[in-house]
Amino acid sequence: MHLYGDPTSGNVYKVQLLAALTGQAYEHTPTDFFEGTKTQAFTAVNPNQKVPAADFPEGSLWESGAILYHLGRDSPFWPQDRWAQAKVLQWMFFEQYSHEPFIATARAAMHLRPPGRERAAFLADKRPGGEHALAVMEDHLTANEWFVGEGPSLADIALYAYTHVAHEGGFDLDAYPAIRAWIARVQALPGYVPMVPWPEAT
Amino acid sequence: MHLYGDPTSGNVYKVQLLAALTGQAYEHTPTDFFEGTKTQAFTAVNPNQKVPAADFPEGSLWESGAILYHLGRDSPFWPQDRWAQAKVLQWMFFEQYSHEPFIATARAAMHLRPPGRERAAFLADKRPGGEHALAVMEDHLTANEWFVGEGPSLADIALYAYTHVAHEGGFDLDAYPAIRAWIARVQALPGYVPMVPWPEAT
Repeated sequence: MHLYGDPTSGNVYKVQLLAALTGQAYEHTPTDFFEGTKTQAFTAVNPNQKVPAADFPEGSLWESGAILYHLGRDSPFWPQDRWAQAKVLQWMFFEQYSHEPFIATARAAMHLRPPGRERAAFLADKRPGGEHALAVMEDHLTANEWFVGEGPSLADIALYAYTHVAHEGGFDLDAYPAIRAWIARVQALPGYVPMVPWPEAT
Repeated sequence: MHLYGDPTSGNVYKVQLLAALTGQAYEHTPTDFFEGTKTQAFTAVNPNQKVPAADFPEGSLWESGAILYHLGRDSPFWPQDRWAQAKVLQWMFFEQYSHEPFIATARAAMHLRPPGRERAAFLADKRPGGEHALAVMEDHLTANEWFVGEGPSLADIALYAYTHVAHEGGFDLDAYPAIRAWIARVQALPGYVPMVPWPEAT
């Protein structure tokens, strides 16, 4: 795999984390956060101009969820049981639609936008959706160690990426003890690699 | 399967269309568009309070993409080839992140919000993202009859639902001839069922 994308993106980190946890080597070309996805070279890999994107022998693949599936399909992170597979996808789609658009965008705003009324309004707009997603996760993790089955899956990797840095977007994880315990379980997995800190991290 | 969700939702229709195309019977409990997902009964099926949700013998499942996978996994709509599977998921995640949040929300606004400056601003905000998604689709369909491989897959069903009613949100498909030809191909599939029109459709 040749991975493209800026390393401060949680969506890129998901792929890096799975590769590390499954012991798969890859090449990585970082892209510029702002204009890196608009270049002709990047657009040739992903016409949708979003990170991550990846080249495989079969061709190019984009969308973090699809890359996780392709990379993890033969590992324990993709369960054999068909019902468990559907539940893994359920949490991965949840992450992209109901979690990332609130929690990841708030983090990016805190790092990239100047403090002030406009940023505060943006963060206030993102807060209810983010808190709702965290509450859904907290409820699940109060009764379960992992999102699907008895061990970590692609669902945990997808959800971990932006959740463990949610505080950078102003979400206080002190209110979510089950999420914090789950974060510790992910960080204890053999082969775990941390996310690259945001250059001007708060 | 017992499907829950209001029938004007494209995300619900995806599941109904796949069930029809694969000849699978199911029960359906429609939910109210506004408050139907906030009830205790619905929340018990989907704690994330979004449609569609479904009960199966194994338990409850939500997120249209996960339900499509579970329902279609043994049909020709889920390819056998592993690379093709990853590409199907790529387009399904694209639909949920880069297409639906613009094209479906614009349609809902046109039906539900009163005409005026606020609605116009909302639609203007959604337009660039929607046009970008349609352009990515048009490019692909100019060179391919289907999104993955030589026949229809879950990717086509996921993308068809809101694309074929994109005009209801103000997106003019006249500018996308390859998309229009693909829509006609989907509608010609044996077993095809149309989407329920919005009650007060324009």
